[in-house]
Amino acid sequence: MTTKAQQRKANLREKLVEAAETRIDRDGAGALRARDLAKDAGCAVGAIYTAYDDLNALIMAVNGRTFQKLGLVVASSVDGKESETPTKRLILMSNAYLTFASDNTNLWRALFDLQMRAEDNVPDWYLQALRSLFSHIAHPVAELFPDYSHEELDLMVRALFSSVHGIVLLGLEQRISGVPLTKVELMIAQILSQIG
Amino acid sequence: MTTKAQQRKANLREKLVEAAETRIDRDGAGALRARDLAKDAGCAVGAIYTAYDDLNALIMAVNGRTFQKLGLVVASSVDGKESETPTKRLILMSNAYLTFASDNTNLWRALFDLQMRAEDNVPDWYLQALRSLFSHIAHPVAELFPDYSHEELDLMVRALFSSVHGIVLLGLEQRISGVPLTKVELMIAQILSQIG
Repeated sequence: MTTKAQQRKANLREKLVEAAETRIDRDGAGALRARDLAKDAGCAVGAIYTAYDDLNALIMAVNGRTFQKLGLVVASSVDGKESETPTKRLILMSNAYLTFASDNTNLWRALFDLQMRAEDNVPDWYLQALRSLFSHIAHPVAELFPDYSHEELDLMVRALFSSVHGIVLLGLEQRISGVPLTKVELMIAQILSQIG
Repeated sequence: MTTKAQQRKANLREKLVEAAETRIDRDGAGALRARDLAKDAGCAVGAIYTAYDDLNALIMAVNGRTFQKLGLVVASSVDGKESETPTKRLILMSNAYLTFASDNTNLWRALFDLQMRAEDNVPDWYLQALRSLFSHIAHPVAELFPDYSHEELDLMVRALFSSVHGIVLLGLEQRISGVPLTKVELMIAQILSQIG
């Protein structure tokens, strides 16, 4: 492949991921259609599959960008807050997570809606983005539980992330938890204050 | 409507909800098709809509049965365990929830997958089933926080349910939390022990 062809392919990938991001943001990942994307990116439908294996691979690329944005939002919520208690910092990060999920619901849902099991071949950069997100949470958790082994700490970080995710998910859906969005922050604070 | 016609309609509703339950259990709610259900229930496709407004209403009827089973499983996990600590009872109920979700994943997912907002007209029996499930959790939570107001208690019950739900959800998907199922119980115990 010549460098020019490589550049063309990279440009197409970029156009497609931007088009897919806009469409997922607006209509959700379930509504993504190759025909629409080809129109958005100004290419033939078949050209999509020279850039990405399939639409799932394209959604994964969008998810990678979403994870990066999410990581930045979560990290910056505790910028300059080093003197706050670890519990307070966990609450700040969780509220940032809630706000991101609320402002970017379709992109955020796409992170979790894609049916992909651990045994599937999860791209390295995806796992890297996940580890980066967890590493932000790990700092205050390590302060809260200084005697934890590395394994216990890792489990607690994932457990806390999953807990906050559950509160945000059911809070945003409002259906099962049945609480208005303004109460979701209160629920997060209630749980995290008990843990801290 | 004559009594005989009413009885026929009730029979058809029963046949349809059983057929839908079997199909959702096996293939998930997303794969439900009116044509298949009509075949299962031995009726015309159009007859389905004399018994239920639409397929969503039928899925809701299945969800009602699933909620009842789930409530029984959660309640019976603490039968005769009144002398255990409230934290231990919360862990037992959470593990029962995990087991139910793991054994009936498609039926359990259907409880949450249906896009229904709080502002929609949620049937009374549905809210009743939800309140019944929450009432089981409320007993140990009230023992843990005797000074809570009714409102704080209600919020904590929903927050705890959402937390455990998040751990079970991501644990079963294995993708984001990245932990094997055997560790999910450990995560639940880790969170609930801190809260208790």
